[in-house]
Amino acid sequence: MSKTEFDIVVIGGGPGGYVAAIRAAQLGLSTAVVEANHLGGICLNWGCIPTKALLRSSEINHLLHNLGEFGFAADNVRFDLDKVVKRSRKVAGQLSAGVAHLLKKNKVPVFDGFGKLAGTSGGRRKIEVTKDGKPVATLSAANVILATGARARVLPGLEPDGKLIWSYREAMVPTEMPKRLLVVGSGAIGIEFASFYRNMGAEVTVVEVLDRILPVEDEEISALAHKAFVKQGFTLLTGAKIGPIRKNGDSVSLSVEAGGKTHDITVDRVISAVGIVGNVENIGLEGTAIQVDRTHIKVDAYCRTGEPGVYAIGDIAGPPWLAHKASHEGVMCVEAIAGRHVHPIDPRNIPGCTYCRPQVASVGMTEAAAKAAGHTVRVGRFPFIGNGKAIAMGEPEGLVKTVFDAKTGELLGAHMIGAEVTEMIQGYVIARTSELTDAELKETVFPHPTISEAMHEAVLAAYDGALHI
Amino acid sequence: MSKTEFDIVVIGGGPGGYVAAIRAAQLGLSTAVVEANHLGGICLNWGCIPTKALLRSSEINHLLHNLGEFGFAADNVRFDLDKVVKRSRKVAGQLSAGVAHLLKKNKVPVFDGFGKLAGTSGGRRKIEVTKDGKPVATLSAANVILATGARARVLPGLEPDGKLIWSYREAMVPTEMPKRLLVVGSGAIGIEFASFYRNMGAEVTVVEVLDRILPVEDEEISALAHKAFVKQGFTLLTGAKIGPIRKNGDSVSLSVEAGGKTHDITVDRVISAVGIVGNVENIGLEGTAIQVDRTHIKVDAYCRTGEPGVYAIGDIAGPPWLAHKASHEGVMCVEAIAGRHVHPIDPRNIPGCTYCRPQVASVGMTEAAAKAAGHTVRVGRFPFIGNGKAIAMGEPEGLVKTVFDAKTGELLGAHMIGAEVTEMIQGYVIARTSELTDAELKETVFPHPTISEAMHEAVLAAYDGALHI
Repeated sequence: MSKTEFDIVVIGGGPGGYVAAIRAAQLGLSTAVVEANHLGGICLNWGCIPTKALLRSSEINHLLHNLGEFGFAADNVRFDLDKVVKRSRKVAGQLSAGVAHLLKKNKVPVFDGFGKLAGTSGGRRKIEVTKDGKPVATLSAANVILATGARARVLPGLEPDGKLIWSYREAMVPTEMPKRLLVVGSGAIGIEFASFYRNMGAEVTVVEVLDRILPVEDEEISALAHKAFVKQGFTLLTGAKIGPIRKNGDSVSLSVEAGGKTHDITVDRVISAVGIVGNVENIGLEGTAIQVDRTHIKVDAYCRTGEPGVYAIGDIAGPPWLAHKASHEGVMCVEAIAGRHVHPIDPRNIPGCTYCRPQVASVGMTEAAAKAAGHTVRVGRFPFIGNGKAIAMGEPEGLVKTVFDAKTGELLGAHMIGAEVTEMIQGYVIARTSELTDAELKETVFPHPTISEAMHEAVLAAYDGALHI
Repeated sequence: MSKTEFDIVVIGGGPGGYVAAIRAAQLGLSTAVVEANHLGGICLNWGCIPTKALLRSSEINHLLHNLGEFGFAADNVRFDLDKVVKRSRKVAGQLSAGVAHLLKKNKVPVFDGFGKLAGTSGGRRKIEVTKDGKPVATLSAANVILATGARARVLPGLEPDGKLIWSYREAMVPTEMPKRLLVVGSGAIGIEFASFYRNMGAEVTVVEVLDRILPVEDEEISALAHKAFVKQGFTLLTGAKIGPIRKNGDSVSLSVEAGGKTHDITVDRVISAVGIVGNVENIGLEGTAIQVDRTHIKVDAYCRTGEPGVYAIGDIAGPPWLAHKASHEGVMCVEAIAGRHVHPIDPRNIPGCTYCRPQVASVGMTEAAAKAAGHTVRVGRFPFIGNGKAIAMGEPEGLVKTVFDAKTGELLGAHMIGAEVTEMIQGYVIARTSELTDAELKETVFPHPTISEAMHEAVLAAYDGALHI
């Protein structure tokens, strides 16, 4: 009989849960993971990772249609959509198997089933695991970490039907390229799908109810992204109101009101990317002191719920809905359980990335948010056109924007659009986490020639002036 | 008559000199630049920048021959070498024109000629400018910054002849692809040319007198680069002794002793990349208190020479021979002249990058250097194969290695090989410049999915253990 008593049981094996379990094992705590679907969760199987594989392919397609710029030529350039999708699935499969391997290596058993809080017994938490409605195991643990994640929000009238209206799932495994595509929602997920399909050749329209795309980003970054996408042939409708969807045989028609006009749109497929809701149902929260706010569990800065010994991390614990936030919360609450001294995670130190073309990455406060919070700000800007490496790479489109507190020199926020920015933002994240100011960033010798020099120039620009513009 | 009296005259308009001049102008100092050739210097015209343009093309060629991996296909893939070279020259030309524009915008006159210290007059320095041996102007300044740069070292018997034996200049503007190429020297310059020509289809042999390629890098990084290059079909001969070159009509033969064997080699072209020597000749050092050590001017931590009011920056002031070192020295000594409080630049905080495939980047001490300096070290390693984004990008080849002081947790050095590492290293440079320890780096939330997460894991690996391996 397999072991059923643990120091920690983690419900959900996504980037929050499996990382928490590995960290717990490293700290010598006996730990189990309960996972109803795929190890690695949505992120690894149907999110961050497979979309990056798809986006890599779409970047290649873009390059293949611009070879002349670099002195190359090729005939009969083509792609096999099935192979593109299979590669993405293979990457996801490889990484999910990798998570299984890591858990095994760390001696963390995985219970294949749906986990649910089931009261206490002798001061320990009980967790019931069921599979297809049938009991699989009853576990007990001193601590439970809820990491059940989230799922796509469904708008009435825009319910995914698996054929004409897609959620992220269908959008990730197309069997044929839609000629005309409508993406509803211009957050990171919507914009990434829009970017993939557009760069693979589809006509893409994006509708956004708010007044700008990528609405969580700094306004200037949103505006530059908007401009870049329009140049790439996107149709972008912001401040939009969507009328009822009319399904035809193999297409969809609707009216969208935007900019004081009515746009009659017919497309082959619709992708709904209008946010997420936390998976708070059927996990045994009823009758506990755990509070739910809309679809998220209320936690304190240490991911503690209202119930002693029960933690919640990742998407289910509220925004930002990002895998790296989930992982760090997992590590933090496990270390706290192990008796280590931990620091709460400051949400303003959690970066966000969107892997469209050009890429977008940011950390901390937007200029508007900094002003609204009462800061007197110094703002620096440096465009990629002043950066040698960007020119040499053929990537002159981009901007780095910094927001400093004028009184203290604290870096309040950094906002980037352009090639490679998702790999570059960590420098600013290190700076924010360590509360660095303009002084340390000015002194830092950024290597030449790199696009990252624009990060240095954007600091100089906020003070004495950039050198190369 | 144009102005000839300045607060600062900068001799040499490369990345050290022109940046110093711009900074001086920003600080309200009247400044002139004397440049004998191209604004932007070797770096911008015949070094860092045009090679990056060429290397971008060679990466594209590599990708075009591996399209199947990503689900793409194309027929008759080809390049036009003339177009590839022209693009590189156009990029260099655009940036050199940009420097001219920046100097003009900052009201810094440029004297087209060869500058030379010519004694003092009334407590001010005199500078003579000649063009083709004829006097152009005599300038005077309170301060002179020598930024004359360096040129390729010429080995006896391996003198560039413009036809069979190339310096970096000819190597950057090939009129036809050599089928067989020999690169002498495996520092950054040699390896970058080797990488360009190999990825464009040439058979490439690299010979290195020392016992490993990229000899300034950490030994493990050298070894991984070696392995990667051999896999790409390079021939690498280390600990090598080169026999006399025999020139045939359109080829070159020689014997190389390496690994206890004699290798008889016949190639079409040879690239000599065996280091540089400072341009210390004919700039009026004779009779001054300025001291020259081999081919470099001796300076203190503030770039001051033995002569009051005369500074030397960049390559002429000694290693590391890197453009970003030159620029920062330029800014530092101008700010000191302007009466600002400045900090000397710690050479251990100056990163180095090599833009081969896979890329190499590092900052601070190698493991061996740290041990030799008496540190007890903690070393962390994280391979790209454990990184989701690297897998999704099709770039699983790489490693991040960190070296910490075991007693203090100080990050002593960081060493990276793999995709995008030249853009990523700045995070570690920020950490070193601000004397951060493992504690701050562990707390930093690196965004997911990025290759930069490997930087976080390599910190964890040095302490409690990485999560994803």
